[in-house]
Amino acid sequence: MLQVNDNYLKLPGSYLFSTIGKKVSAYTQANPDKKIIRLGIGDVTLPLAPAVVKALHEAVEEQADAATFKGYAPDLGYAFLRDVIAEKDFKARGCEIAADEIFISDGAKSDSGNIQEIFSADAKIAVCDPVYPVYVDSNVMAGRCGNYDGETEQWSNIVYMPCTAENGFAPDLPKETPDLIYLCFPNNPTGAAITKDRLQDWVDYANKNGAVIIYDAAYEAYVSEENVPHSIYECAGARTCAIEIRSFSKKAGFTGLRLGYTVVPKDLVCGGTALHGLWARRHGTKFNGAPYIVQRAGAAVYTPEGEAQTREQVAYYMKNAAYIRAGLQEAGYTVYGGTNAPYIWLKAPNGMTSWQFFDYLLEKGNVVGTPGSGFGPSGETYFRLTAFGSYENTVEALRRIKSL
Amino acid sequence: MLQVNDNYLKLPGSYLFSTIGKKVSAYTQANPDKKIIRLGIGDVTLPLAPAVVKALHEAVEEQADAATFKGYAPDLGYAFLRDVIAEKDFKARGCEIAADEIFISDGAKSDSGNIQEIFSADAKIAVCDPVYPVYVDSNVMAGRCGNYDGETEQWSNIVYMPCTAENGFAPDLPKETPDLIYLCFPNNPTGAAITKDRLQDWVDYANKNGAVIIYDAAYEAYVSEENVPHSIYECAGARTCAIEIRSFSKKAGFTGLRLGYTVVPKDLVCGGTALHGLWARRHGTKFNGAPYIVQRAGAAVYTPEGEAQTREQVAYYMKNAAYIRAGLQEAGYTVYGGTNAPYIWLKAPNGMTSWQFFDYLLEKGNVVGTPGSGFGPSGETYFRLTAFGSYENTVEALRRIKSL
Repeated sequence: MLQVNDNYLKLPGSYLFSTIGKKVSAYTQANPDKKIIRLGIGDVTLPLAPAVVKALHEAVEEQADAATFKGYAPDLGYAFLRDVIAEKDFKARGCEIAADEIFISDGAKSDSGNIQEIFSADAKIAVCDPVYPVYVDSNVMAGRCGNYDGETEQWSNIVYMPCTAENGFAPDLPKETPDLIYLCFPNNPTGAAITKDRLQDWVDYANKNGAVIIYDAAYEAYVSEENVPHSIYECAGARTCAIEIRSFSKKAGFTGLRLGYTVVPKDLVCGGTALHGLWARRHGTKFNGAPYIVQRAGAAVYTPEGEAQTREQVAYYMKNAAYIRAGLQEAGYTVYGGTNAPYIWLKAPNGMTSWQFFDYLLEKGNVVGTPGSGFGPSGETYFRLTAFGSYENTVEALRRIKSL
Repeated sequence: MLQVNDNYLKLPGSYLFSTIGKKVSAYTQANPDKKIIRLGIGDVTLPLAPAVVKALHEAVEEQADAATFKGYAPDLGYAFLRDVIAEKDFKARGCEIAADEIFISDGAKSDSGNIQEIFSADAKIAVCDPVYPVYVDSNVMAGRCGNYDGETEQWSNIVYMPCTAENGFAPDLPKETPDLIYLCFPNNPTGAAITKDRLQDWVDYANKNGAVIIYDAAYEAYVSEENVPHSIYECAGARTCAIEIRSFSKKAGFTGLRLGYTVVPKDLVCGGTALHGLWARRHGTKFNGAPYIVQRAGAAVYTPEGEAQTREQVAYYMKNAAYIRAGLQEAGYTVYGGTNAPYIWLKAPNGMTSWQFFDYLLEKGNVVGTPGSGFGPSGETYFRLTAFGSYENTVEALRRIKSL
């Protein structure tokens, strides 16, 4: 008699955004005249850049003509895209990454959920607290995390690395040595960046301990400061210990277009096996390539027009971030993030919990954000606002918050 | 010290198409004047239908305008696509499948590789022999298949169901009861169809034994005969034992566009757990939706223009199939498939093995096909030709084969 994967049954409900949705909809039903501003969810709002739109139309025309029609894409991505990524995202920053170490995918969420598959079932993972839930949930599904304790909101077999104001929201090296270390910088949800020196400490630690770092650099395009790395491969020795995941979602507004990539250097070897071959096998078996037209759109991001236009989009969001940050500070809030990331992480005032502040902001200011406790216990008493709204809404939201 | 998933190391090399590629390239280098016709790989060649192209351009324009821009898609797919699928692919055929039982994905390959994840690690799988390799490889990666015997070319913990001329290439009910049964009809590689009565036997068998059928209906659009089902849900009781996987790749030429879907009925329960919720959780955790523009293209396939145009594409390929089938029969070959599927499965003549016939056809006829033994031991002495070439190339290939 067939049974299910009972690891799935251990997962607590994913209530964060559905609870938010229910609270907001209850409030708007009771108060239909109020105009709600949503700075909660991490989705972009600006339309696709003209260079991307042009590339999409052109690629669609290619697909409309038998002479230029493309069927199945190469499993690992088209060379025109992998080559330009190797050149612009890595070589131009002094990182030694070859085109055939880049695996094109349908986005960073898929890759960050799937990457754990190539490791042994008893690998011990370490995650930041607070954290993007996909790293944990995908490992729970694979049976790596032990049991969930509803009291502490933690899994028995995960090494948690608290990210707090004290350590600048960049975790300290853990006491217990993990096998697989998930790091995301610039960070979601805290908006924190990591300096190159501190990231180098992690690379050295992983190399020394035979651990692998999964480095999620989905927000790389938002880095503004000199000493903050865009890629983990800016650190010496990262080729032997790090996998990097990148996304076009926030860099170029591709959340609805789906494109990302993962770098697995050929020097990365675990117990005698090169991970590059394993990931290639996974990709070749359970994935069939990102759409040709979307890969063409991705390549357009690296043209001079595409670079200028997407840089402008990032600047637009970062202007929002700066506005939120400055406004909250003026209003007396303790604020983090927003300098190298599109997220602002603020301390709830007057000893409120994350959810108390959520209710307060919704009811008194008609502004929706995300309670920090939803990302892990160390997020309690914090609150996330995103810079992805329109400038006009951002200004209005801050006016309301200041007037509370 | 981190270790890899050593199930990956058990996989033998995936040599079929690379061996074919090497042989073809060696031959063309030695004989640069010969014009090779490729009827080997299962990729379409006709360009996208005008209705699909129009929908893509329109959707790209929506993504170019802030007022109509769409970011993250709903995890499980847009309602405009799920609704029309429920209506046209199921309700219109008398199948009771609701829109919220349909999960939109980036293609049948991803879904057929990922679906095993929601079942227990000790589930015993059954596959046809010959078979599409993804079913087996994805289960090997999950540790379900035991060890590989290079002699028999079989895994120690898989129930193999031979598909032979004797059983019309539709497998007999196995003696040893499996937990998870993979069926693909119309079949790749044999081109065989299954009648509704014989499929009903499988549904009854699965319900009786608490097994689940993964029904891969990627070639459904090629069904031409009355007593051949388009969906497993045409069989009574399938809602409690079957998951169905569909693809836009062959139905509408989306191999380079990537769109498919999986149906998990809410009545499908394993050991007390509804599989619908598990697959929804998997989708929500490790996937972020198919691109909006591609989902719009998918919906266009169901418009009157889209239906007419894609039906014409299928008819074009099926004209090729009929031409190959008739031509081979005239030339004295024993031929199967090609009536409800775009694949022709022929018996190699004069006691040749699959690879001997491959070499013979390449060298004497300059035509490339796929050796049946590459799909499993019961494929030995068989050979697959596809109907996805141009009509002109198909006619020329048959002229050459007949003149051998």
